[in-house]
Amino acid sequence: MIDIVIFGTGNVAYHLCKAMHSSDKITVKQVYGRTKRSLKSIPKYIDTTTSLTNLKKAEVYIIAISDDAINDFSKIIPVSNSLVVHTSGSVPMSELDNHNRKGVFYPLQSFSKERELSFKTIPICLETEHQDDLDLLKEVGLALSDHVEVIDSQKRATLHLAAVFVNNFVNHLYAIGHDLLKEESLSFDLLKPLIHETADKINNINPSKAQTGPAIRNDLKTIEKHIHLLKNNSDKEAYRMFSTIISKSYGKEL
Amino acid sequence: MIDIVIFGTGNVAYHLCKAMHSSDKITVKQVYGRTKRSLKSIPKYIDTTTSLTNLKKAEVYIIAISDDAINDFSKIIPVSNSLVVHTSGSVPMSELDNHNRKGVFYPLQSFSKERELSFKTIPICLETEHQDDLDLLKEVGLALSDHVEVIDSQKRATLHLAAVFVNNFVNHLYAIGHDLLKEESLSFDLLKPLIHETADKINNINPSKAQTGPAIRNDLKTIEKHIHLLKNNSDKEAYRMFSTIISKSYGKEL
Repeated sequence: MIDIVIFGTGNVAYHLCKAMHSSDKITVKQVYGRTKRSLKSIPKYIDTTTSLTNLKKAEVYIIAISDDAINDFSKIIPVSNSLVVHTSGSVPMSELDNHNRKGVFYPLQSFSKERELSFKTIPICLETEHQDDLDLLKEVGLALSDHVEVIDSQKRATLHLAAVFVNNFVNHLYAIGHDLLKEESLSFDLLKPLIHETADKINNINPSKAQTGPAIRNDLKTIEKHIHLLKNNSDKEAYRMFSTIISKSYGKEL
Repeated sequence: MIDIVIFGTGNVAYHLCKAMHSSDKITVKQVYGRTKRSLKSIPKYIDTTTSLTNLKKAEVYIIAISDDAINDFSKIIPVSNSLVVHTSGSVPMSELDNHNRKGVFYPLQSFSKERELSFKTIPICLETEHQDDLDLLKEVGLALSDHVEVIDSQKRATLHLAAVFVNNFVNHLYAIGHDLLKEESLSFDLLKPLIHETADKINNINPSKAQTGPAIRNDLKTIEKHIHLLKNNSDKEAYRMFSTIISKSYGKEL
């Protein structure tokens, strides 16, 4: 069994706890949260603490807190020469403090407490300073997921950036679609099969090859009609920008 | 059995043919294409023609051709007072010529020949001038799908516009993600679980509630880092625009 301590009570910490608890190769010895209230989200079967002085011993200490707090927090962890990893896509491994061995354990997924997730398909991106630590993190990763990859800080930054495009920005487009339909009292359910097919299509077609719509056809009549239909200026701006970049990307200037 | 003639050989015509052929309530009597070559994509078990003078009789004539050709084509169909419908999201029903009874049969999905689709879950949006025709189109629609809706031209235009956001624009974001990873020799497979979870999440969470990422957190440090990482100017522009509109939409000015 590999003993783990997790720092943090957010979505990543919550899902890590649940997935690690159900693995027979990992024991979550303890979860640290700043307040008792924040620890309420952590499953009751896991030992928790609000005090760093009560910290249990572990083979891997996982910092699953907000990106901008990682550096400061890594300085005050009261263990030395232990393996301390963070779970962030955008923070370089080097931001961890030097008094412990550094590593990254980045599960590439969008976590929310409202949704159960299977870790099995989630890519887990690992980085360490030392080979022994990498071997240990691989064991942890493979206990949760079938997709464990070694990825350095530079590549991970690009991965996280790409994730912002395909998750955050895509989700905002869903929100625009939702609101457009709401104004016409149409159910968002109408768009769901299209949203799922669009996402499923990229399983076997390169997204550039799957591109369709008025912009790639250079269908100025429909584009103008659509911009006219939009009430919200930021929606108009988004529509114009996409139409321009799509038609540029595929070699047709609007 | 309801007899159907389809005009067109594109993706919509192809998928309609296949779905209608496998229904025991519909017979595709004929498919019309301008050239023999274009008709090659149509399954061999369906009768085809390149001449409008050889047109078979049907209860519903379906125009499944490009949007800007619908009006002209509807004028030359050599039948009168028959039900002639188009399959377009953005073309008003009124663009069909007056010498036939008008209707719309709009399957809200992104079709490509490379992918098999189940029609059962695809919303089919109907519009007609006459109640009898609506009843007939409903029968056709329900033979293919569990989701048949009556939607007028104005609402359908909004639906199509929303579809452009959640399909065309989303797909372009997938393409950007794909290309960013390719530059770093990373596999696009890494992003697929995230893409699918992002799409699945909207099944039970309103997309506005599911929004995460640097822009909604007003995390200027990560935003600047990301813009700096992007090499392509249009990617930088897209990133800036999304960050601004996301943070504006959620009440935080960047």
